[in-house]
Amino acid sequence: MMRRHKVIFDTDPGVDDAMALRFLTRRPEFDLLAVTTVFGNLDIGTVTRNALWLADRMDLSVPVARGAAAPLARARGHGAPHVHGANGLGDIPLTGPLTGLLADPSVRAADPRPAWQVIVELVRAHPGEVTLIAVGPLTNLALALAHDPEIAGLVAGVSLMGGAFGTRGHRGNVSPVAEANILSDPEAADRVVTAPWPVTMLGLDVTQHVVMDAAYLDRLGAAGGADGVFLRAVSRFYQAFHERSRGLAGIFAHDSLAVIQVMAPHLFTLRRGPVRVACGGIADGQTIQKPDGVPCPPLPAWDVHPAQAVAVDVDAAGALTLYAETFGV
Amino acid sequence: MMRRHKVIFDTDPGVDDAMALRFLTRRPEFDLLAVTTVFGNLDIGTVTRNALWLADRMDLSVPVARGAAAPLARARGHGAPHVHGANGLGDIPLTGPLTGLLADPSVRAADPRPAWQVIVELVRAHPGEVTLIAVGPLTNLALALAHDPEIAGLVAGVSLMGGAFGTRGHRGNVSPVAEANILSDPEAADRVVTAPWPVTMLGLDVTQHVVMDAAYLDRLGAAGGADGVFLRAVSRFYQAFHERSRGLAGIFAHDSLAVIQVMAPHLFTLRRGPVRVACGGIADGQTIQKPDGVPCPPLPAWDVHPAQAVAVDVDAAGALTLYAETFGV
Repeated sequence: MMRRHKVIFDTDPGVDDAMALRFLTRRPEFDLLAVTTVFGNLDIGTVTRNALWLADRMDLSVPVARGAAAPLARARGHGAPHVHGANGLGDIPLTGPLTGLLADPSVRAADPRPAWQVIVELVRAHPGEVTLIAVGPLTNLALALAHDPEIAGLVAGVSLMGGAFGTRGHRGNVSPVAEANILSDPEAADRVVTAPWPVTMLGLDVTQHVVMDAAYLDRLGAAGGADGVFLRAVSRFYQAFHERSRGLAGIFAHDSLAVIQVMAPHLFTLRRGPVRVACGGIADGQTIQKPDGVPCPPLPAWDVHPAQAVAVDVDAAGALTLYAETFGV
Repeated sequence: MMRRHKVIFDTDPGVDDAMALRFLTRRPEFDLLAVTTVFGNLDIGTVTRNALWLADRMDLSVPVARGAAAPLARARGHGAPHVHGANGLGDIPLTGPLTGLLADPSVRAADPRPAWQVIVELVRAHPGEVTLIAVGPLTNLALALAHDPEIAGLVAGVSLMGGAFGTRGHRGNVSPVAEANILSDPEAADRVVTAPWPVTMLGLDVTQHVVMDAAYLDRLGAAGGADGVFLRAVSRFYQAFHERSRGLAGIFAHDSLAVIQVMAPHLFTLRRGPVRVACGGIADGQTIQKPDGVPCPPLPAWDVHPAQAVAVDVDAAGALTLYAETFGV
């Protein structure tokens, strides 16, 4: 019998968030329990609106809970409309029947609980079974831990898109060393990656190796049915950003890899060791692992924390094939 | 006519310091003006004693000036006797006539001026001509800049061994991200690499690629005359450290590369861009470049500073051949 992963999808949609969520909800390996939102790619109002819109479009019957509007400790910027569009979904029109639905909170409204509470309650309801898939800033997870530290021992695992470990010359995307999700709330990230739960981190080291090029996206659009048409449409603005900033005629898969890793861990090479996040200063938001078995002096800053798994390599072709197959392409 | 590089050698001997200084003083391309010492591999007393001993042994007639005993801002540890030996020179005996000389300061004593002053005066005496070769913590250079900022516009350049830029998976050697020279005084390093003088940084990215293995060192010892015998002897303790900590039957060339780079820049691939040094926190002592021409948002923390050169690749065989040839091997 196929193992089904009970998951909570913590997200700031976001183009690649939307693409990851559609992948997740089409895979029989996943049992989605809730969607929780967090500020990040855009403000919390916009990303929560988008999560509700996506849940409606995807006909999901799970709670969508609004999460943190700001990082734990320090004010940050105002999201990345130049990456994801002003509406956070590549500026595709969100009009039509869905807008009508959204205008009526009795039809589709956010869960009344804050995101952290939904996380805590679902983890406690299914001890040892829930995997948190986090693809935005880690504020909600840090808040859940703060409210109920025991959940660290009750989750199946945490799979997160975030960080840049420089394992193959990959660097940050918002500073020379920092990746956007982590820099959006470094203090939260440091708490999440040092907590005693099993974390797997999908950073730029692997997510920038999985490129959905224009031809791939065109194939999804042409042969992937209504979902394929949606994926192609939502990704155009995002692709234009990649072209403008990097000369890349395509997009990085980013958030989808945090989902793929849960069901297809064989596609990834992991490196184990404690991870810390730099908070403040020039290296603000940098993720730094002290890999097990690599020569380094004893350093309590790392050594007192549990080893986590950092993805250092990925079977990019395998990941791309899995994603496309999921849409019948 | 051969261009001769007027150089000041700022050093904390140190095994690889001694090996670099012997190389430098055998090359006709260099005109050594002074040796300045700095705490680092061992305390300032020990490394200054060693610099005087080396100057005597090498029959140098240049000033040897004692420098900083501690970093600019924060107290640090007590050097690395496990790497360089308790006497800083691989625990080779420093007895015999030299000890006698050292006991008599009228014969061989440190210059009465502090290191920073020697640097300032020599740079001003030879405007545009002096290259600073720095292979220890950068405290003396920072102090020289603080006393006389105009020297930044008067040096030919700064070639320093320090840092780790992670360009090919190379990481720190005293933390996951920090290299020992830089972590010994991050505040000084940040001032030196952001000053408006041309800096070339030889970090672990290249110095750990140039391995003098046991056979190479044995050849130096067997065929390199008295100097070769010295190099082999001084390197044994250092080699044992590399074997113990990394399973490497040999040593990294480290400091010699800051010398080689000045006379043989063609052996190195350089990457340009402003460099900052993390001061404090998890990333303390990390060197972070924002490379020119690489996609990254505008970041004043880097952008307001001059581009420096970071070595990202080295012709290791070429460097090893050059070093050995210098000793007739």
